[in-house]
Amino acid sequence: MKSKKSSVVVLTSLFLSIGLSQGLIAQENIPFTKAVHMAKYLEPSRVYAEQNKISAQKLKELEKRTGKKPNILILIVDDMGYGDPGVYGGGAMIGAPTPNIDALANNGILLTSTYAQPTCTPTRAAIMTGRIPARSGLTRPILTGEQPTVNPWADEVTAAAMLSKNGYITALSGKWHLGEQDGYWPHQVGYDEYFGILSVASEFTQGMMERRYPDMVYNPERMKVLDTLSHRAITAGKKGGKLESVQEIKTLDELAEIDQKVAEYSESFIRKAVKEDKPFYLVHSFIKVHNDNFPAKAFKGKSPAKFPYKDAVIEVDDITGRLVNLLKELKIDENTFVFFTSDNGANEDLWPDSGYQPFKGGKGTTWEGGVRVPGIASWPGMIKSGKQSDGLFDLMDLFNTSLTIAGIENQISPDRYIDGVDQTSFLLGDEGKSNREAVFMYSEKTFMALRWEEYKVHMKVFDVKHPMANLDESTILNVGMAPWIYNLYMDPKEQASTGHRYFEWGIGTAVGLIREHGNTYKDFPMKDIGLGIAGK
Amino acid sequence: MKSKKSSVVVLTSLFLSIGLSQGLIAQENIPFTKAVHMAKYLEPSRVYAEQNKISAQKLKELEKRTGKKPNILILIVDDMGYGDPGVYGGGAMIGAPTPNIDALANNGILLTSTYAQPTCTPTRAAIMTGRIPARSGLTRPILTGEQPTVNPWADEVTAAAMLSKNGYITALSGKWHLGEQDGYWPHQVGYDEYFGILSVASEFTQGMMERRYPDMVYNPERMKVLDTLSHRAITAGKKGGKLESVQEIKTLDELAEIDQKVAEYSESFIRKAVKEDKPFYLVHSFIKVHNDNFPAKAFKGKSPAKFPYKDAVIEVDDITGRLVNLLKELKIDENTFVFFTSDNGANEDLWPDSGYQPFKGGKGTTWEGGVRVPGIASWPGMIKSGKQSDGLFDLMDLFNTSLTIAGIENQISPDRYIDGVDQTSFLLGDEGKSNREAVFMYSEKTFMALRWEEYKVHMKVFDVKHPMANLDESTILNVGMAPWIYNLYMDPKEQASTGHRYFEWGIGTAVGLIREHGNTYKDFPMKDIGLGIAGK
Repeated sequence: MKSKKSSVVVLTSLFLSIGLSQGLIAQENIPFTKAVHMAKYLEPSRVYAEQNKISAQKLKELEKRTGKKPNILILIVDDMGYGDPGVYGGGAMIGAPTPNIDALANNGILLTSTYAQPTCTPTRAAIMTGRIPARSGLTRPILTGEQPTVNPWADEVTAAAMLSKNGYITALSGKWHLGEQDGYWPHQVGYDEYFGILSVASEFTQGMMERRYPDMVYNPERMKVLDTLSHRAITAGKKGGKLESVQEIKTLDELAEIDQKVAEYSESFIRKAVKEDKPFYLVHSFIKVHNDNFPAKAFKGKSPAKFPYKDAVIEVDDITGRLVNLLKELKIDENTFVFFTSDNGANEDLWPDSGYQPFKGGKGTTWEGGVRVPGIASWPGMIKSGKQSDGLFDLMDLFNTSLTIAGIENQISPDRYIDGVDQTSFLLGDEGKSNREAVFMYSEKTFMALRWEEYKVHMKVFDVKHPMANLDESTILNVGMAPWIYNLYMDPKEQASTGHRYFEWGIGTAVGLIREHGNTYKDFPMKDIGLGIAGK
Repeated sequence: MKSKKSSVVVLTSLFLSIGLSQGLIAQENIPFTKAVHMAKYLEPSRVYAEQNKISAQKLKELEKRTGKKPNILILIVDDMGYGDPGVYGGGAMIGAPTPNIDALANNGILLTSTYAQPTCTPTRAAIMTGRIPARSGLTRPILTGEQPTVNPWADEVTAAAMLSKNGYITALSGKWHLGEQDGYWPHQVGYDEYFGILSVASEFTQGMMERRYPDMVYNPERMKVLDTLSHRAITAGKKGGKLESVQEIKTLDELAEIDQKVAEYSESFIRKAVKEDKPFYLVHSFIKVHNDNFPAKAFKGKSPAKFPYKDAVIEVDDITGRLVNLLKELKIDENTFVFFTSDNGANEDLWPDSGYQPFKGGKGTTWEGGVRVPGIASWPGMIKSGKQSDGLFDLMDLFNTSLTIAGIENQISPDRYIDGVDQTSFLLGDEGKSNREAVFMYSEKTFMALRWEEYKVHMKVFDVKHPMANLDESTILNVGMAPWIYNLYMDPKEQASTGHRYFEWGIGTAVGLIREHGNTYKDFPMKDIGLGIAGK
């Protein structure tokens, strides 16, 4: 287990290891669009005055017209691959057409460079807090029976909490997976309401699928582990209240219907917000398409491919369509920002219960297959339809962007570092450019790689020996004398590092960005919540 | 070099090697949509009475309305990867947006399972003749200085020849690469007109690029090889006439503009056909995006990625838009069938001067990366817009489909086997299903693999050791006891063969299809034009 101090040291020595000392780079002199430091506690962001103006004007006019703050609907699919939706190259080709997701993209902006963390929990933590998971301590899922020594939520501030204080009604609908203990519940960390599951689909299925997990299911002693799990139920709660069990989930048939119940909850929440005339912030967090997939009865065999994963994609697409159509039905679609994404890359080592990405590697790695995800923003009248952009978007930017949309970005506390950047003007500007300069990729607390412009710069890499084994047999390798560098326009599958042969002009800048990033830990250190493995 | 007889023997022994004798399979009893044998010399095809009716009716009504036969425009890009166009997952993501190609797909039908041969010449031969290249003998490019012992064209019949006899004006515009000698020219094998180059872009660049080919360029003796090439010029010809040199191509700047000249020729040909009130059949065959790419001056640096390949994609997209818009301008778009495709997969071993595919392998292999290509059909009023289908389409089907569109499918001679099937009703039926049962994949005369429904069944595989080396370091491996099988819905990247674990129910059918196919060579043998390498 590394201390806060040693993490900074590791990063620094990394830069030294490629032969660059602190004084070598004068970042101020580089000719590229340089991000601006607005404040010490804020990630620098690229500022474009014209699109800022357009974006602010649009928001102002909308509020004038509607008399309300905009609603925010964030849809997070679990473990969906970048390539799964039709608009990302999948759909019909892979036996699961996604007409509703495709329509959302065609009516909004399709982002081709949206990045998540390599696994579920850190991505969700980043979306909630706007911070790189190393800072919140939520760097990986809290496993069955684990108890952090420090509650990471004690001093984290979620977008939900800030919005709730500012007239929004906020809800987490669906999967949480950011702690199951008292003190970690969604309605204790900012959400006015919560309805869903605290853990993840596979924590349910492991005790139910006798063909898949016979070594557990037929061993009564092992089955008792399930009793140590906090909750094998649909649970719910309201701010200030306890956790209620809505429905025990004891069978696969019950499990199969969870996403339908969560969708119904989301629908009723949206209707309620409209009735109460309050702007809402709803994170609709699908339980699917995480293994083990059991589509709701109505979706069994409904995909051309017929496999459960593909039927689950069809179900997710259908629910996406339901929620988007409800916005139209309630005539609030023009006042609702919708963002659709996934929490990490497809988990290929669970094949055939896994998604598709055209990239190398999968969930758990920092190859593109692990971290690049679908990213679709839609907002009729506010976001021009039919747009596509490869501008950088890190899912933690949803934190800042949500606050800006609600007009409360100035309430961010200066006592913590916010790694997210406000992307409102990128999305709302008709020819908007990304406000993000770079994406920093981690495996837990280990810095792995940088994405800057179209380049990916790896300092450490996952050894992907067998293309379908990611998480289960992962090893991290240190790269040699120079970083491994890929031009993702030319080599999106990261097949052959170009290194100095093609990128000598840019290496200094890239390494400088990593060093600047590492320096932020001096004043805003990593948080240790006691999730390490002794001796590792 | 194999004789006709031994090829059949090789195929037969292959079936035996996986433990299935001739008598084992009763194909008549299988429950799947079985293709119908219309005639001994025609590839069996799946017949759907309802869509046949709709398709025939549409064609009849169109002719009644226009008083003319429909025009046919086939656009073939050289070496474009499946993933290059935006609608196939590339575009903005890989630094080369393709708005015109995307619009063509969105206004027509996007096919996700279109198959070419693994290299250029055989694909073009298949499109022209409707026959598997092993039957025409054009199984691979005729290399610099090679002279086949038999002219394959002596007894081949092109779609162009048949259409020309039936009131169409026919032209080959752009790259030919189906033989450069007298007797092989486009205007000698069915085209009324030809304008373009007889070989391929790299035959020009090798003598021009001193940085890339210094071992040739600075060696006067080797440079003399260029004099043995038939033609380093834009050439042209008319039926019954000689080959004319239009413009010697001596510099890279001249080379860069060839596609612009070819586009101008295609435009003038279309205008002439309209003026002369004749239906046309135009194969517009791009010189780009084959290596070495030099975009026309107007397109240099015009792609976000800036690399020559990407600029060339932008140029191809622009020309596609120009030709489609011309049809609208001349008010013949509703009477013109347009098909856009590539002649094989991206040639990854030429990186960075190569395209993108999300699959395994590249040009020269029978992995999906080598043979799956974009396939877009557009015909306003005749093909419903916004359709997508993963129904099988082999580019040789363009032979039959063109004849059916022109109403002369009954003129196919019974003295040769036609491997193409008529796909008119698939494309024109609003819910059309593919008429093709299976795709048979070859490396020259070696049968490699079958695509049937969503399955790929490999009998032999290319050993793709290094992901970016395909053609240059290719070896063919025999598979073991059982074929390697991939469900392409679930595993489009062909990462892990499922074999008997997931496909026991289908292996018999698949092997039966391969055997039936092999049996066609008994009456319609392969043709040997003397392209073999002695001792191989």
